[in-house]
Amino acid sequence: MLRGIHPLLGPDLLHALKTMGHGDDIVISDANFPSGSMGPPVIRADGVSATGMAEAILTHMPLDTFVPETAWRMEVVGDPQAVPEVCAEFQQIVSKRAGDFRIVPVERFAFYAMARKAAYIVATSEFRLYGNLILKKGVVHPHEVEFGR
Amino acid sequence: MLRGIHPLLGPDLLHALKTMGHGDDIVISDANFPSGSMGPPVIRADGVSATGMAEAILTHMPLDTFVPETAWRMEVVGDPQAVPEVCAEFQQIVSKRAGDFRIVPVERFAFYAMARKAAYIVATSEFRLYGNLILKKGVVHPHEVEFGR
Amino acid sequence: MLRGIHPLLGPDLLHALKTMGHGDDIVISDANFPSGSMGPPVIRADGVSATGMAEAILTHMPLDTFVPETAWRMEVVGDPQAVPEVCAEFQQIVSKRAGDFRIVPVERFAFYAMARKAAYIVATSEFRLYGNLILKKGVVHPHEVEFGR
Amino acid sequence: MLRGIHPLLGPDLLHALKTMGHGDDIVISDANFPSGSMGPPVIRADGVSATGMAEAILTHMPLDTFVPETAWRMEVVGDPQAVPEVCAEFQQIVSKRAGDFRIVPVERFAFYAMARKAAYIVATSEFRLYGNLILKKGVVHPHEVEFGR
Amino acid sequence: MLRGIHPLLGPDLLHALKTMGHGDDIVISDANFPSGSMGPPVIRADGVSATGMAEAILTHMPLDTFVPETAWRMEVVGDPQAVPEVCAEFQQIVSKRAGDFRIVPVERFAFYAMARKAAYIVATSEFRLYGNLILKKGVVHPHEVEFGR
Amino acid sequence: MLRGIHPLLGPDLLHALKTMGHGDDIVISDANFPSGSMGPPVIRADGVSATGMAEAILTHMPLDTFVPETAWRMEVVGDPQAVPEVCAEFQQIVSKRAGDFRIVPVERFAFYAMARKAAYIVATSEFRLYGNLILKKGVVHPHEVEFGR
Amino acid sequence: MLRGIHPLLGPDLLHALKTMGHGDDIVISDANFPSGSMGPPVIRADGVSATGMAEAILTHMPLDTFVPETAWRMEVVGDPQAVPEVCAEFQQIVSKRAGDFRIVPVERFAFYAMARKAAYIVATSEFRLYGNLILKKGVVHPHEVEFGR
Amino acid sequence: MLRGIHPLLGPDLLHALKTMGHGDDIVISDANFPSGSMGPPVIRADGVSATGMAEAILTHMPLDTFVPETAWRMEVVGDPQAVPEVCAEFQQIVSKRAGDFRIVPVERFAFYAMARKAAYIVATSEFRLYGNLILKKGVVHPHEVEFGR
Amino acid sequence: MLRGIHPLLGPDLLHALKTMGHGDDIVISDANFPSGSMGPPVIRADGVSATGMAEAILTHMPLDTFVPETAWRMEVVGDPQAVPEVCAEFQQIVSKRAGDFRIVPVERFAFYAMARKAAYIVATSEFRLYGNLILKKGVVHPHEVEFGR
Amino acid sequence: MLRGIHPLLGPDLLHALKTMGHGDDIVISDANFPSGSMGPPVIRADGVSATGMAEAILTHMPLDTFVPETAWRMEVVGDPQAVPEVCAEFQQIVSKRAGDFRIVPVERFAFYAMARKAAYIVATSEFRLYGNLILKKGVVHPHEVEFGR
Repeated sequence: MLRGIHPLLGPDLLHALKTMGHGDDIVISDANFPSGSMGPPVIRADGVSATGMAEAILTHMPLDTFVPETAWRMEVVGDPQAVPEVCAEFQQIVSKRAGDFRIVPVERFAFYAMARKAAYIVATSEFRLYGNLILKKGVVHPHEVEFGR
Repeated sequence: MLRGIHPLLGPDLLHALKTMGHGDDIVISDANFPSGSMGPPVIRADGVSATGMAEAILTHMPLDTFVPETAWRMEVVGDPQAVPEVCAEFQQIVSKRAGDFRIVPVERFAFYAMARKAAYIVATSEFRLYGNLILKKGVVHPHEVEFGR
Repeated sequence: MLRGIHPLLGPDLLHALKTMGHGDDIVISDANFPSGSMGPPVIRADGVSATGMAEAILTHMPLDTFVPETAWRMEVVGDPQAVPEVCAEFQQIVSKRAGDFRIVPVERFAFYAMARKAAYIVATSEFRLYGNLILKKGVVHPHEVEFGR
Repeated sequence: MLRGIHPLLGPDLLHALKTMGHGDDIVISDANFPSGSMGPPVIRADGVSATGMAEAILTHMPLDTFVPETAWRMEVVGDPQAVPEVCAEFQQIVSKRAGDFRIVPVERFAFYAMARKAAYIVATSEFRLYGNLILKKGVVHPHEVEFGR
Repeated sequence: MLRGIHPLLGPDLLHALKTMGHGDDIVISDANFPSGSMGPPVIRADGVSATGMAEAILTHMPLDTFVPETAWRMEVVGDPQAVPEVCAEFQQIVSKRAGDFRIVPVERFAFYAMARKAAYIVATSEFRLYGNLILKKGVVHPHEVEFGR
Repeated sequence: MLRGIHPLLGPDLLHALKTMGHGDDIVISDANFPSGSMGPPVIRADGVSATGMAEAILTHMPLDTFVPETAWRMEVVGDPQAVPEVCAEFQQIVSKRAGDFRIVPVERFAFYAMARKAAYIVATSEFRLYGNLILKKGVVHPHEVEFGR
Repeated sequence: MLRGIHPLLGPDLLHALKTMGHGDDIVISDANFPSGSMGPPVIRADGVSATGMAEAILTHMPLDTFVPETAWRMEVVGDPQAVPEVCAEFQQIVSKRAGDFRIVPVERFAFYAMARKAAYIVATSEFRLYGNLILKKGVVHPHEVEFGR
Repeated sequence: MLRGIHPLLGPDLLHALKTMGHGDDIVISDANFPSGSMGPPVIRADGVSATGMAEAILTHMPLDTFVPETAWRMEVVGDPQAVPEVCAEFQQIVSKRAGDFRIVPVERFAFYAMARKAAYIVATSEFRLYGNLILKKGVVHPHEVEFGR
Repeated sequence: MLRGIHPLLGPDLLHALKTMGHGDDIVISDANFPSGSMGPPVIRADGVSATGMAEAILTHMPLDTFVPETAWRMEVVGDPQAVPEVCAEFQQIVSKRAGDFRIVPVERFAFYAMARKAAYIVATSEFRLYGNLILKKGVVHPHEVEFGR
Repeated sequence: MLRGIHPLLGPDLLHALKTMGHGDDIVISDANFPSGSMGPPVIRADGVSATGMAEAILTHMPLDTFVPETAWRMEVVGDPQAVPEVCAEFQQIVSKRAGDFRIVPVERFAFYAMARKAAYIVATSEFRLYGNLILKKGVVHPHEVEFGR
């Protein structure tokens, strides 16, 4: 355990987040997502919820302000207007931690196509269906650096 | 770059610090220290000073309160009473970041013996001789965890 | 996710449990335990509590009935009679899942010595101090095999 | 051996099944199938029959209900209407373990093309010709999770 | 599948047997044996019985005639005179395939000590307790080589 | 050395042959063949002739009866009608060990193209030019399995 | 530490520079650059500024004189005429260390495309935005070799 | 050191040459050649001249007589008719060691394209510019084998 | 194939011989020798006789003249005075290729102890029992170097 | 090639020298030295003389002034007073490059014992016997750092 670093972030995930840069995507996937066959390196987070993981990552990672869309969720198959509970919670976490960003719903196979280009996938045990989220890393500005060099 | 995490800590060092636990030692070595032949895994920090690295690590890692000694430096060969400038700065950083701990001077080859048992060695480019420090990780108490689970 | 298998058990932990046999020990460690420097392979379970992990493992792994002691916890340093809340919960889980076994308290450094000989260490994010448990795998008897061959 | 987990599933296969998600395919191949040159990672199951393996996998893995076809076998070369004994047994196992799904026959080289895109291949010692089966993993719904978190 | 080679022998086991020489030991272990923590490389044979594996190995591997003992089984704990059914079958297989050799019973922990020095361990799914066997490889004499060079 | 297995087959080659299936090709190459730059994994057999190797492989591997051509050799450059001595010997070995199959001559660069798609290449020390052979693995039928399961 | 070699260059970076040749590109990236997802091997330089790194590399590496452009920086998004402070410093360092070369500004995504073809990426902790530089290695002429052979 | 084998050939280069066959190319590159970014495996020969290396390789490797061109050098950029001293020496070595072959000059980027398809690159410390050579391996005929089998 | 290098020496063996120095031992083992469990790296030579291999190695490797014994064979168990045919051939080869050295017979388990300290083991298919030989590498003197530098 | 860095130092050797620290030893070995069986990592320098290598290393590496002996050579076996030509050249290079240090002769097997504890071994092609040298790295003092930070 380390002071000032969110405890849900294990060694591999901290390593991954530190290597990500402006414009890189990270997928937070639920327990049914085919993480292993997507291509990007997978960091397992068995026993962790997708919403908890979203909160942990957004504690340290800003979202991208250079582009119109910076967060995405998967549309419900056959009911594209639905907003599952877990997705509503995703939006609350993004709004609270990252700012005024709207999570954009994406059709299932288009979501897969985006996931294949992500830098990393974090595979959670989120039980609720459609508990998948893609986040694009933004820029940390010089004035945000809290510790001197 | 990540928010709230000291920027001197690279991916490998973050990974290492996260895997360390109560009682594990980490060596911050200067540019002349024989890091590679000690045995523990070495994380290079070329271009970083030992004092900057000490400050970065102590930002997130507590020292051990279960034992009488928790930080050590190398004695000057032939002048065991000397306190080189870099060591005085180490003491200031420990006092500021970690609390009321005294860095204990240790004879050169005894210091090597301690280094051989450390969990990790961080090899800096500290130019000043005797810029070596060993820190023992302490416990993070439940009330110190800043983020909910 | 798989049917009939406890969801806290990720791929690496399932792999590990399947390779363990009669008399092998597994350590469930808390967030301050020095898992990485003990020696046995470490399986990270960041974000999972030690009690949840104990329940998950004991769902599928029996304890050893060939020996007088089969489960151990770490004594509180300086207060060997204390039974921390997390340890009381360990005892409830063992009694419920594994049967009439008593968890034996062991002095801190003797506990480390036992951990160094374990088959695996599962490193949880258990915040509560002394949230460490060692379990010795028992025998699965032929009549307990639920599925035909 | 573990309680409640089918004994035919070895460490590598448990690991593989746990990493698979919704829509991922797994091939159960017979003793003559060119498993090694297909591309996906191969898990050997020498000495195990394809029907036993199908039963073991379907004990823990649901089939996909989002698509019209979710299980496939190889057509007999030169006799596409034939239903070999081993294939009839496959259908019985699927019906018993997974539900009302029909195994779809596929021409030999089309079957190879599907196998090249699978997540994993399990290479059994099934002696009987045409003892090959592809299964597509379905979704585990929250109410199916048997153990609390 | 290959002609003239016992089908229970997978690629890794064939490789192992071919590298073994005069005096090397191989352990055939049951489903409860702690194969992974013994030290020698482990070849998994999930779904295969120990008796079937013994028959497969002895089809191609002679036993050692240079020493008084060349095959060992584990004594029943607390009942050293007992001969479990699986051990009686081991003796039948050895007599049939290898010749007039007696399988020597060995106390549990002495058996573990022998296993730690073996060249390989084959981990079967033998359900029956005490289904463990150690075999010492003998010499193949020039006149036994069936194929010309 | 193992009983009943051709002694020219080393551990790596036995492993390779066991993983090959119906329709997979294996190249037996002479001492001048550019084995290493073809792509498939190469198994060295320095000191072994190509004809000896062909005999060893065909002792255990059947040829494919599902296709019109199942064995190929390289045509002599500039003299496509020539049948070098080593190729005549190849034909004798195929006829004796595998049955009534004709080895088909193939132009040099077309032979290279076929070799690039093979499962394995066995690189012998055959001195004689044009001592290269490609063999396609066939099916082992259930009645050909010599040992019970 | 070594005499006559710039101390900012760690073991991995020295190794990389020594393997580079005429026409190879190296990227010096700032703390927000997505180094890890570009493709080329990444050498971390956490705690080092991009300008310091540029000076260190140009101490030992000449720029290419065979082509019209040999150094590039990223244009400010939305303000292509701007010359950020860090870029002005890059130009001073290039002029001082390498000679009369102009650093060419390149649009953000075109810069990414160039980075994907580089031989190496050095990931610094440069805080200032747009602190990214690509340098093309030139030829060391025989008369520049300082040490005899 | 070995008797009868040219001492400039180290373990990795001997290994490489032994795996090469008829038609494979090897690049001998000078100290400025971008060996590492070409693709083929690189064998370092720091401190060795390209001419010395050419002589060492041609001591044991014949050139290809099946094709009109079997050796190539890089044309001087801007002066395609020039024959640098090092290239003249290459021609002398080829003529002396390999026979009546002409080294063909190739434009710089076409030379790079050929190098990308080579089996190996030997990276020497040749100081002189344009000290690069590609050699195509020929056939060793049976009568050239000096040692009996 | 290479000119002037014995064709029985494959890439791995050439690599090994080149890395050996004065006083290093190499074991040439027969088909029954337990090469894999001795410890030193094993180079397989399936299909090659031990006598052929001895001749190949001694073509390029001198024996040690600094010590009284430089070659050893295994004594026949139970008949220490016997000189098997294969051992007599070993002596002829040593005398012809290396000079006036006597191969010293060593008791079986003492031979194993020597083999455990060797630099490499070459595992041949020598069928004849006791076809094992240990050779100690000697010095190549400057005047023996055949090729200039 | 790099400016200001001795050209005999390849990528692996530069990497090694950079990781060495105060008190670490490096062995420069001749062509007959058993480098591979000593234990420390070996960096090949085939084609380079030991004297050239000594000069290259001492260009950048200081010798140790904290101890009475800092450089060693191997005594001539049977003639401990002899000073071979190559050793006299070693002394000249040390005196010129490193300062007033005397190379200490050490008996052959004591020299081996020292070599086994070295950080690295550089295996040259030095033909002359006794061309072996051990050097102990010293301290680079802050005022010797040529380039600013």
